[in-house]
Amino acid sequence: MKSYRKELWFNSPKRREFFNITGDVERCLEESGIKEGILLCNAMHITASVFINDDERGLHNDFEKWLEGLAPEKPYSKYKHNDTGEDNADAHLKRTIMGREVVVAVTDGELDFGPWEQIFYGEFDGKRRKRVLVKIIGD
Amino acid sequence: MKSYRKELWFNSPKRREFFNITGDVERCLEESGIKEGILLCNAMHITASVFINDDERGLHNDFEKWLEGLAPEKPYSKYKHNDTGEDNADAHLKRTIMGREVVVAVTDGELDFGPWEQIFYGEFDGKRRKRVLVKIIGD
Amino acid sequence: MKSYRKELWFNSPKRREFFNITGDVERCLEESGIKEGILLCNAMHITASVFINDDERGLHNDFEKWLEGLAPEKPYSKYKHNDTGEDNADAHLKRTIMGREVVVAVTDGELDFGPWEQIFYGEFDGKRRKRVLVKIIGD
Repeated sequence: MKSYRKELWFNSPKRREFFNITGDVERCLEESGIKEGILLCNAMHITASVFINDDERGLHNDFEKWLEGLAPEKPYSKYKHNDTGEDNADAHLKRTIMGREVVVAVTDGELDFGPWEQIFYGEFDGKRRKRVLVKIIGD
Repeated sequence: MKSYRKELWFNSPKRREFFNITGDVERCLEESGIKEGILLCNAMHITASVFINDDERGLHNDFEKWLEGLAPEKPYSKYKHNDTGEDNADAHLKRTIMGREVVVAVTDGELDFGPWEQIFYGEFDGKRRKRVLVKIIGD
Repeated sequence: MKSYRKELWFNSPKRREFFNITGDVERCLEESGIKEGILLCNAMHITASVFINDDERGLHNDFEKWLEGLAPEKPYSKYKHNDTGEDNADAHLKRTIMGREVVVAVTDGELDFGPWEQIFYGEFDGKRRKRVLVKIIGD
């Protein structure tokens, strides 16, 4: 069994932003030389997500509005977590909705995807350097 | 390390429907001959889910009502994604709540499940042919 | 390829409670002797979660309040599932938000985690014995 590991780094100038990382993950897979197996891609921070959905700007706007409805950023005093001096409780909740990780099949050396599947890094508390882990196991 | 791959196809006559696919997935596992490892089962479409929960009709009704509350189908104009000519923005959000994939342990050639775990395909934008991927790795 | 399996048991005196199980999972990994691979940790019950987030009491209070807002326990009659004699429909919904499982990379014999990642068992229908599965594959 082979294994491969790489960190992808991000530093969004905004509090919230989505990055399409499909190309980065494909380069990891190529570098790994693994042809059959499983790829894990996860946020290494608990105020960020890795998820699979559509690369369509209107939908990303919908996600932003929807997540703000389900877990609003403000008022900061709404959340006990923010009593610790943080202001990012909403980011912990938003990441919970969007998910920490994706697991993708690797077949014939490629991400085994349906027609519109794209991998995104979802930042919910940006303005600093944060990481995503790519781990691949297989043959 | 062995690996196995199969696509399961669905074509719901309804916009939204849940299918219990546990038996289909068990047949995949048997066909694979894998006794110890990991099974990934994921929707290959971004308006559908694979999830694990109870096979109880009342609960499925509760899910339908709850998801409509959290991410209503209508009015279609509520979502920017629908400006592209689609009407399925709500399906992208509902699938986000329910999840894209499940990862299941394989032990002694069986799905290593608790007493009530069943695997479902959740369709949120049906009336066309769509796919689920089953990938198994192990020995 | 090596594989390892263990069940962790819980019996919360409360209906809802979060348990930090990171140490338990680390002990499983050490016991397995696996240095490179993938670890799956999942609730074996469909009214409970395994998730990764922060070990901060204020945040856990925020999760409790937030989940009660999204999927209230009462009135029990609100849910068709509860017509079966159960009172735990809300627990099925809460677990859906928080997730069934986590998949964690194993690198150099350790959980390959970012700075604040901790694994939790989330109980949403306690007062009885319930289980979490830890499955590890790799070399």
